[in-house]
Amino acid sequence: KEIAKLPKETLALWEKYGADESDDKESFQKSFIRHVTTTLARSIYNIDNFSAYQATAHSVRDRLIKRWNETQQTHTEVDSKRVYYLSLEFLLGRSLDNALLNLGLKDNYGGGIKELGFTMEDVLEQEVDAALGNGGLGRLAACYMDSLATMDYPAWGYGLRYTYGIFQQRLKDGYQIEFPDYWLNFDNPWELPRLDVVVDVQFCGSVNRYTDEEGHERYAWEGGDTLQAIAYDVPIPGYGTKNCINIRLWSSKPKRQFDLTRFNEGQYEQAVYEQMQAENITAVLYPNDNHMVGKELRLKQQYFWVAASLFDIVRRFKKSEKPWSNFPLQVAIQLNDTHPTLAIVELQRILVDLEGIGWDEAWAIVTQTFAFTNHTILPEAMERWPVPMIQYLLPRHMQIIFDINLFFLQKVEKAIPNNRDLLAKLSIIEESTPQFVRMAHLAIVGSHRVNGVAALHSELIKQTIFKDFIQFYGESKFENKTNGITPRRWLHQANPKLSELITETLGSKNWLKNLDLLKGLKSHVNNKDFRKRWVAAKLSNKVRLADYIQKATGVTVNSNALFDVQVKRIHEYKRQFMNILGVIHRYNTLKKMTSEERACVVHRVVIFGGKAAPGYYIAKLVIKLINSVAEVVNNDNSIEDSLKVVFIPDYNVSVAEIIIPASDISQHISTAGTEASGTSNMKFVLNGGLILGTVDGANIEICEEIGDDNIFMFGNLAHQVDDLRHAHRYRSVPVDPSLQAVINDIESGQFGDSRIFAPLINTLTHGKDYYLISDDFQSYLDTQKLVDESYKDQEGWTTKSIMCSAHMGKFSSDRAIQEYADQIWEIKPVPVMTKKHI
Amino acid sequence: KEIAKLPKETLALWEKYGADESDDKESFQKSFIRHVTTTLARSIYNIDNFSAYQATAHSVRDRLIKRWNETQQTHTEVDSKRVYYLSLEFLLGRSLDNALLNLGLKDNYGGGIKELGFTMEDVLEQEVDAALGNGGLGRLAACYMDSLATMDYPAWGYGLRYTYGIFQQRLKDGYQIEFPDYWLNFDNPWELPRLDVVVDVQFCGSVNRYTDEEGHERYAWEGGDTLQAIAYDVPIPGYGTKNCINIRLWSSKPKRQFDLTRFNEGQYEQAVYEQMQAENITAVLYPNDNHMVGKELRLKQQYFWVAASLFDIVRRFKKSEKPWSNFPLQVAIQLNDTHPTLAIVELQRILVDLEGIGWDEAWAIVTQTFAFTNHTILPEAMERWPVPMIQYLLPRHMQIIFDINLFFLQKVEKAIPNNRDLLAKLSIIEESTPQFVRMAHLAIVGSHRVNGVAALHSELIKQTIFKDFIQFYGESKFENKTNGITPRRWLHQANPKLSELITETLGSKNWLKNLDLLKGLKSHVNNKDFRKRWVAAKLSNKVRLADYIQKATGVTVNSNALFDVQVKRIHEYKRQFMNILGVIHRYNTLKKMTSEERACVVHRVVIFGGKAAPGYYIAKLVIKLINSVAEVVNNDNSIEDSLKVVFIPDYNVSVAEIIIPASDISQHISTAGTEASGTSNMKFVLNGGLILGTVDGANIEICEEIGDDNIFMFGNLAHQVDDLRHAHRYRSVPVDPSLQAVINDIESGQFGDSRIFAPLINTLTHGKDYYLISDDFQSYLDTQKLVDESYKDQEGWTTKSIMCSAHMGKFSSDRAIQEYADQIWEIKPVPVMTKKHI
Repeated sequence: KEIAKLPKETLALWEKYGADESDDKESFQKSFIRHVTTTLARSIYNIDNFSAYQATAHSVRDRLIKRWNETQQTHTEVDSKRVYYLSLEFLLGRSLDNALLNLGLKDNYGGGIKELGFTMEDVLEQEVDAALGNGGLGRLAACYMDSLATMDYPAWGYGLRYTYGIFQQRLKDGYQIEFPDYWLNFDNPWELPRLDVVVDVQFCGSVNRYTDEEGHERYAWEGGDTLQAIAYDVPIPGYGTKNCINIRLWSSKPKRQFDLTRFNEGQYEQAVYEQMQAENITAVLYPNDNHMVGKELRLKQQYFWVAASLFDIVRRFKKSEKPWSNFPLQVAIQLNDTHPTLAIVELQRILVDLEGIGWDEAWAIVTQTFAFTNHTILPEAMERWPVPMIQYLLPRHMQIIFDINLFFLQKVEKAIPNNRDLLAKLSIIEESTPQFVRMAHLAIVGSHRVNGVAALHSELIKQTIFKDFIQFYGESKFENKTNGITPRRWLHQANPKLSELITETLGSKNWLKNLDLLKGLKSHVNNKDFRKRWVAAKLSNKVRLADYIQKATGVTVNSNALFDVQVKRIHEYKRQFMNILGVIHRYNTLKKMTSEERACVVHRVVIFGGKAAPGYYIAKLVIKLINSVAEVVNNDNSIEDSLKVVFIPDYNVSVAEIIIPASDISQHISTAGTEASGTSNMKFVLNGGLILGTVDGANIEICEEIGDDNIFMFGNLAHQVDDLRHAHRYRSVPVDPSLQAVINDIESGQFGDSRIFAPLINTLTHGKDYYLISDDFQSYLDTQKLVDESYKDQEGWTTKSIMCSAHMGKFSSDRAIQEYADQIWEIKPVPVMTKKHI
Repeated sequence: KEIAKLPKETLALWEKYGADESDDKESFQKSFIRHVTTTLARSIYNIDNFSAYQATAHSVRDRLIKRWNETQQTHTEVDSKRVYYLSLEFLLGRSLDNALLNLGLKDNYGGGIKELGFTMEDVLEQEVDAALGNGGLGRLAACYMDSLATMDYPAWGYGLRYTYGIFQQRLKDGYQIEFPDYWLNFDNPWELPRLDVVVDVQFCGSVNRYTDEEGHERYAWEGGDTLQAIAYDVPIPGYGTKNCINIRLWSSKPKRQFDLTRFNEGQYEQAVYEQMQAENITAVLYPNDNHMVGKELRLKQQYFWVAASLFDIVRRFKKSEKPWSNFPLQVAIQLNDTHPTLAIVELQRILVDLEGIGWDEAWAIVTQTFAFTNHTILPEAMERWPVPMIQYLLPRHMQIIFDINLFFLQKVEKAIPNNRDLLAKLSIIEESTPQFVRMAHLAIVGSHRVNGVAALHSELIKQTIFKDFIQFYGESKFENKTNGITPRRWLHQANPKLSELITETLGSKNWLKNLDLLKGLKSHVNNKDFRKRWVAAKLSNKVRLADYIQKATGVTVNSNALFDVQVKRIHEYKRQFMNILGVIHRYNTLKKMTSEERACVVHRVVIFGGKAAPGYYIAKLVIKLINSVAEVVNNDNSIEDSLKVVFIPDYNVSVAEIIIPASDISQHISTAGTEASGTSNMKFVLNGGLILGTVDGANIEICEEIGDDNIFMFGNLAHQVDDLRHAHRYRSVPVDPSLQAVINDIESGQFGDSRIFAPLINTLTHGKDYYLISDDFQSYLDTQKLVDESYKDQEGWTTKSIMCSAHMGKFSSDRAIQEYADQIWEIKPVPVMTKKHI
């Protein structure tokens, strides 16, 4: 309905009854009670902590909605350029605490809930993580959305609303087992179902050529199956701003209007079954991190998501009635990895087939619109889809891909004539049997900018996987945008004690929106009281973690020991295997010591956490080995508590929020050149935890910022890796003697039946030690010794800890987003205007 | 939380903020706007009629919840005997209008919504029917819930929350096609999800015998699969009372805690798939009316529903800590048809296996608790399940059924010795290969009372299907409870003009709670003004229906013609076939007339509606024949509008509300002895529509009430049916000549390719005319002539119409419920006490 056409009477009613609720304690209590009695249909007789959480969440949701509406109305009015962040994963974790803090409601709500007979801590604990991601890539998307919101950018995220998020990990006899994550079973107050925002998505069918009224040859994609994408909006509130942006997640539903010809008598049951199948498309997040899975359903997910999102973006653009040439001035689309690459093809299809724009004009619009972030150079992670599969599911898209490739290679041929080898290397089509579509190539060709996610990684992509493209495009198309993390969640929310100390010390909360201000801590580094409180904050976080470990694993750990953490996806390249081998070395060294010698040793708690892909056999064996070692070590009284090993099950965002602030040292020890950036390294250091790392990913830039004194680096460098692998493969390289000793210990049965671990040990021997554990092992052990020595100097350690945090300004996701906004998207902040409620 | 333990501060907050919202116009408007902006996350900029419906519904829902809570609290405090109505179908239709009327909100809300820029009519039209039933059985359950609520009885309904209700019927080339009814896609404000009310339901596994601590032999049902039943509560508000009772519908969900041993590496995808399969149990309502479907999934539905419901009922009983012997004093369970018969076995299992009660004591409790309503004597509708299927899905239940049968037959043998034939006839087990369980026998043996649903039907069951049981039990166990309908929905809501006239004429609305007061209309039957308004109400309803017909079928009909309606499931025994054969006879008679002759004929619109089971080939052919005849008749200008034929697609509750008040005559012409009761016959007559019917079901009792003058009865009687069928089968009975003429017309191709209709014609010939169309045809045509003659006397017709309504008091569902409550359930009304909001 158009407002202007409404009678005055109606407008007056909206004026009268549409006023905002206040944010004070009493208004919250009123709204809490209303939600208990109506939204939840409960009464004072049956509220438990979970319903108290729901009522609180709904009260916050009401306020988020107001902001969401005001933000969208402002953006519609201003109609400036928007950025759309397409990510197949958004690893949001919990929302209540974050929203309370970002909206500034936590104090009033905390007081209010207490008077209602609950504690905020208990209430917050009720929330189930939204775990729609595997690891770094999905969490990065979540941090970026927080920064976009906080910095007032007009931005939308687009993703899928998986019914099952990343699996829940449990342990049985030390082995990982996976449980479906049925998170939506509990009602989700953090989404706004938009049952009216429905997009038809087509699959299969055929392509027909025809001539339009103007005599142009056109193509129509016809027939096949049609599903519906239903929108669920997830409001993302900025910190200290009214801005509240949106992540739109699509859910697949059967289409109610079926193709009549498919229904004949007797097919009713089949028809119902097919409808139910339609929901399966968005049922499950593929639980693979940094590893391509070539399943047809995955490709369907990708197209389903991309088609619905593009339809939505184009619809929004068309409302403004600007000419198509303005599209790239109004719309920037960022491709988070190659997963959404079909968006390039889909936009070209919309422009050429549906809007009737000429190929070249359309292609210019497309390439100016998209930018592409590469997240890995691991060959097993590179997406490639069989041409016959795309042909079948998306016949028109396959044609367009072939055309894109043809026109691209023609340009290459023109610029660099007679280099057939180069054409084959650049081609979007891999000429194997069957042919494959190289999604990264398509993404590069269809984007105006390609970026890596840390300085080293951005260099490496230019030298390795995309080397040949430089010949054609030059270097300027490829750039670096070092990842970042949001200090709101990863310090303010996860580490309230430290956040409070920083705010008091710096005199304001401005650092939360300008993380460079942390530098101001340096001048307090020798202030005794400040240092004392700094150490106290860390200790209290360690006590909190120790409690959690006790609860989750049954192991008692001493909070005064050095907490040594490695939490991340379990992957060979991340080398948790090296870590546990080092632990065995340490254990057997401790066993050989006398009681007196051991008295001088720094006690250590080695903490592991992380999920392995369900089909990743070797990674799952690493988990088993860790647990087998833990079993032996933790029950060996002879080492007098000098070492404990724990594997915390089901590592996720909310568990990370407990672990990260409690770490003394954390390990980021990927084989050089394999980890694109890492972001947990940033989170640990921001919380005053030191890191032990290889010269890889963002470790390098962290080192540059905080200085060599405050970080423990070791191991071979990226440029040495190829030679070392070559040597392992073609020469006889002896295993490092300390490593051999550890292998012998495992094979002796010290940690149970050694046959279980044979496949793991084989990766070092028959497997030619692809991840160079042997090459880095001695350097790793030496550096660990250095860590022990340094920790003995507690005052020195505290200084390091403070200096770490103080120099982390660069790694705010605000900085990263600022760079994307200025250098790639060319968008400007749009402060939200306070709207009247009509 | 116990109220007593809450701090005063908390109680004070609930006192302060928990006050009821008022029901005036302004409060509604405020609540409407709040729901638009928060619940729906919309703003004044984007409200359409559907969101206006949602906001209105949520405002009503809030008020229903208050009443629901107060009712349940009262029932908990009073803790008197409750009745549980177990029905696999609840055909509720729409809820908003009903709730507005029952709560007395309609005037205030209607005015309020108008000022907000909408009309109540448009808003009501947005609601999707809750169509969780096939026909009469499901709608009866819904009427009974309305009466139970209105009469302040402490009652619960238990059913299943099907994701897909009864299919949507559309027509293509005159054929029925079925579309899945994805009704929950649109959000359902009329249910309260109880995510905390979760019941585990087990399938398969095995039975183990053991000896308990007291030395008793016990059985444990172990292993197998476990699913979860989640409760969704549907509030049912009474009319003119605070009482608001509950229908609890169960939805199947995967269980989050899986049996660990089933998870091994690599099985993750399978595990997710299995979880999704769990939801399929309650996915679809079986679309068969009066016909048994022997699918395993159907049996699983029945047990799933019964197990969850019994668990819930037992849990509620146990809270009161009364001894088990009190169970039948606190709990009455009514079995709506044999679908919930496993509840008998389940309760015996709970008592014997879980509670450790001795078999005989347990069985006494069970049989005093249950009562069973039989709904049909059609042999194809009798539920029988293969013993091996039950053995596999419910191994312990199969044992218990065998034991129940053994002890029952031992008693029979003792009472009537040496009658092996009788034992075989009474046995719960049918000794075929494989064996079958006769569910009706189990229901009779496990219940203290069995009833039919109309006088004739209750007699027939004693003479036919349950005849042998009378020998053992005597007659007193078997009784009659003639069905009823709620006048709130079927007159007050569906026919507001007539309702208003009645209220004005009788001086109050009391007739809505005491339908016998309609007798008061008799004294006004000669009042001119009253008669005029009576006729005007009918005409306005006919105009409304004519508009609907135009919209739904494109056919224009004249509101001054006689509206002749047959709407109900399409079934051979209901003889829509005879009706359309009669229409052909009429059509060809009209064609033979001169224009002058036709001028004297009453113009007639013959209206059909109803769904055929998707696999019921013959019924679907009847629909095709109706549409083929309609096509010819409606396009034949030569008969000058004297006849129109329409098939209204997708007949459902809300369509019935438009059709029924507009009928002049309706047809209820089942072969005598086949229709148990019928309830639409009652609805038509209550709305002043006359009926043309056979001497079957409730037609007989309606005739007794309204008198022969006001009803058109015809056809053979039930006691003649067997002889007539025998004659058709074993002798050569000539086809009725008028019928033969009509058959010849069809076979001549007058209504299209006659080969299509051959299978239908064959039912009359090779099929031995099982439903006796030939035998009744002449009498049917004669009576139709009588109808025409009577209609010409418009004044006489109006008198009949008024006298019809005036005598329908008996057929209120309130009367039926009163009888059940007094004579079977032994429950008393519990008026709801107004509660403070804490």
